[in-house]
Amino acid sequence: MFESAELGHKIDKATFEAEVPILREALLQAQYELIARAKFPVVILVGGVDGAGKSETVNLLNEWMDPRHIQTHGLGEPSPEELQRPLMWRFWRVLPPKGKIGILFGSWYTKPIVDKVLGKSKGAELDQHMEEVVRFEKMLTDEGALILKFWMHLSKKQQLKRLKALEANSATKWRVTPEDWERFELYDKFRKASERALRHTSTAEAPWLVVEGNDHRYRSLTVGKSILQAVRAFLDDATPPRRNLAPPLVPAIDNLHILKTLDLSQALSKKSYEAQLEKYQGRLNMLTREAGFKNISVMAVFEGNDAAGKGGAIRRVTGALDARRYQIIPIAAPTEEERAQPYLWRFWRHVPAHGRFVIFDRSWYGRVLVERVEGYCSEYDWMRAYSEIVDFEEQLSRNKAVVVKFWLSISPDEQLKRFKEREQIAFKQFKLTEEDWRNREKWGAYEAAVCDMVERTSTRYAPWTLVEANDKYFARIKVLKTLCKRIEQALG
Amino acid sequence: MFESAELGHKIDKATFEAEVPILREALLQAQYELIARAKFPVVILVGGVDGAGKSETVNLLNEWMDPRHIQTHGLGEPSPEELQRPLMWRFWRVLPPKGKIGILFGSWYTKPIVDKVLGKSKGAELDQHMEEVVRFEKMLTDEGALILKFWMHLSKKQQLKRLKALEANSATKWRVTPEDWERFELYDKFRKASERALRHTSTAEAPWLVVEGNDHRYRSLTVGKSILQAVRAFLDDATPPRRNLAPPLVPAIDNLHILKTLDLSQALSKKSYEAQLEKYQGRLNMLTREAGFKNISVMAVFEGNDAAGKGGAIRRVTGALDARRYQIIPIAAPTEEERAQPYLWRFWRHVPAHGRFVIFDRSWYGRVLVERVEGYCSEYDWMRAYSEIVDFEEQLSRNKAVVVKFWLSISPDEQLKRFKEREQIAFKQFKLTEEDWRNREKWGAYEAAVCDMVERTSTRYAPWTLVEANDKYFARIKVLKTLCKRIEQALG
Repeated sequence: MFESAELGHKIDKATFEAEVPILREALLQAQYELIARAKFPVVILVGGVDGAGKSETVNLLNEWMDPRHIQTHGLGEPSPEELQRPLMWRFWRVLPPKGKIGILFGSWYTKPIVDKVLGKSKGAELDQHMEEVVRFEKMLTDEGALILKFWMHLSKKQQLKRLKALEANSATKWRVTPEDWERFELYDKFRKASERALRHTSTAEAPWLVVEGNDHRYRSLTVGKSILQAVRAFLDDATPPRRNLAPPLVPAIDNLHILKTLDLSQALSKKSYEAQLEKYQGRLNMLTREAGFKNISVMAVFEGNDAAGKGGAIRRVTGALDARRYQIIPIAAPTEEERAQPYLWRFWRHVPAHGRFVIFDRSWYGRVLVERVEGYCSEYDWMRAYSEIVDFEEQLSRNKAVVVKFWLSISPDEQLKRFKEREQIAFKQFKLTEEDWRNREKWGAYEAAVCDMVERTSTRYAPWTLVEANDKYFARIKVLKTLCKRIEQALG
Repeated sequence: MFESAELGHKIDKATFEAEVPILREALLQAQYELIARAKFPVVILVGGVDGAGKSETVNLLNEWMDPRHIQTHGLGEPSPEELQRPLMWRFWRVLPPKGKIGILFGSWYTKPIVDKVLGKSKGAELDQHMEEVVRFEKMLTDEGALILKFWMHLSKKQQLKRLKALEANSATKWRVTPEDWERFELYDKFRKASERALRHTSTAEAPWLVVEGNDHRYRSLTVGKSILQAVRAFLDDATPPRRNLAPPLVPAIDNLHILKTLDLSQALSKKSYEAQLEKYQGRLNMLTREAGFKNISVMAVFEGNDAAGKGGAIRRVTGALDARRYQIIPIAAPTEEERAQPYLWRFWRHVPAHGRFVIFDRSWYGRVLVERVEGYCSEYDWMRAYSEIVDFEEQLSRNKAVVVKFWLSISPDEQLKRFKEREQIAFKQFKLTEEDWRNREKWGAYEAAVCDMVERTSTRYAPWTLVEANDKYFARIKVLKTLCKRIEQALG
């Protein structure tokens, strides 16, 4: 992996000075085209050995290009806000939007590699992390991002020489800290772990470029030219947007599916409902006040047929909670800022801190429901969403978020009845749109989408709860009960 | 102030139960209209005496209306991220966008009142704070917001009774903490400070409504009806948007103005430039590495004529900095999310933490420059911007942000020369637009706007630096020198 970055690459001064002005102009030109077209973001990762010129390279890129459209992020220790969320949250926060260049100095590679080097994690854990990284980067490239990963390398001998040289010069002495020397002692371990990480994550979409860092001219030109070529290639690509094929999903050929197994006739009397409502709201309220609740969070997802009673169910949940503790996120069309980011970005931004309760009224499942059925995205895009969502929810639950997902199911007849009721009541008319009637005509297609969704995204840590919702009382109690049970399990 | 909230207001159960369904339906109707039209945000503040039903009221509002479109924020102790910014930053973060209702439980009143009660501040400081609050709320209402401020009150006797009653009941006992009793001891002081604060801040645009909190039916109906009436009044207001008049600004009648006093012929030789560039870049670099820099931040604002060399000057500044330490915010048209908020919101979101350096390429001064000259906002709107900006910058500098503002000034002839150069150079063509040519025709109007801006917003803590920029070398060095001087002063 690192062999060719230990050959002693060098560029002489004359060549460098002749090439730089041409490179800079071409880089600027490419950058302005990138901004003007705003078709894709450029994510540049800079990692590698200390002293191999990481920060010098980043500073140089800011000098060569227009720094106003480069976002550089030095990601050191996570902040308290970041520590309360999944590891990846802080990286989602700083992803560049379309048209911009983001340079991440310290990335999703740093912690897994350092943990391995310091013996805090095993090789298998590193591999597992890297697998997740591959999936994450694949998602980014599927969303159109250009990812460039530079690994600045120095041989052990070169690093020693460099640290000593820095120390010898009074102007650069401050840059060598005791930690640098401690890390130098770990060179071999670091090299081994890095190689393992890089090997697993050098993919066709996002390959690593290992750059020998000893000669600043070689290093700078290599990085600059790599960026130029990649951005140009992406800008000049005249082929129509990639439409990867996904093998079509075949519905169960005997036409038996999970929604058919629901007994929608289940109902509760008003009296029984009221008694149980009080009971489970009380229990839910007490659960959110337990000491342990400070260390977990709840993300409750409400999906369901139109008019299935999501709003009513949500109100029975919030009725049990203190308004300062929860937040409801109604999912509507994405905003401009959200459209300039990968699909899941607008949900990541609402990931709660511990001790908080977030309710999603519709959710990231829109991709595999309405967007699939209405053809708002390609088949490939919604097919990949299943695994992206499963990854997302796994990260959440690993960070102690209780992810509870409800599908509220009603029969076509019941829906018709409710639509007609809504037409009659003044303040409910707002809730009924043309779109609701149109969706109704695609009942079968939605049903198939729901079945696939449940099958592909119901996991041990984030299972779907199907809620028989023809009877509102029954549905609300089932929702409350399920929430209580899941939170109780999490509190242990 | 509190007399009429100690009269023992009460509503009987029958009246309450008859009125609530009607009120709820009307509230919901109003809320849906608010959402559909998205013309203004509703900011509801809930403050007052402990035990007067603050949280019960907030929960009830969430129950009565559609909680999916209410954002409730319990603002307790500030987070580490918040502590690094001006006091108001955390409130700007949670302002509801147009069409939404935001309930703030704990607000910009809390800390000033509590500090006074605990003897941490003097009465004069409280008054000064309240003056700032009045200006802040005026800005919000000028931006179209509906502000509703509820103060839940209990007499001392009632509070004592209530705390005792809560303690006596095993289900509510947990709600009474030792701090509650400590605070009860301070009742008189709290009452006095609150009255002082409320008196100063009960304005026509945002009056306080003091509500007797003892009877939950009276309290709930009062708050509910007040909200309904206010939202309805704002929704039904058929008068055209208010166009407050501002007295016209008269330019100096002898036609002498500050830009004319600049000696644009000042220049530096290339040699002298290069020597000074190295010197001041080095000094700037060292300043950002001083230990004390961790406790301040820098906000550098670059404004100037088109083609005055803002980009080049910015690059000479960033050339001295580590890319991980700074961020450049190029100000373009506001995004959808930004348009749903008050004007300054999109700048508040970029206020840096301590130890950071943020450069604004154009800034909040757009309001009193391009928006004024092009008529993008009313005269009243840009007139009020002067004082809003002065307040903004005062808050920043009080929080140890060094606010450095540059106006880069060139002559019309020099601009023409540069425009023509840009037409010739391929990668500079991106920088020249039709708009630049149009702006040029309004040279006089822009000049007047610049003079007013400098006169009205150059303050002791955030002075303008006018930069003679016909010679780029001279301009860049003046920028670097000024930055060094201001940061040195701040580091003391």
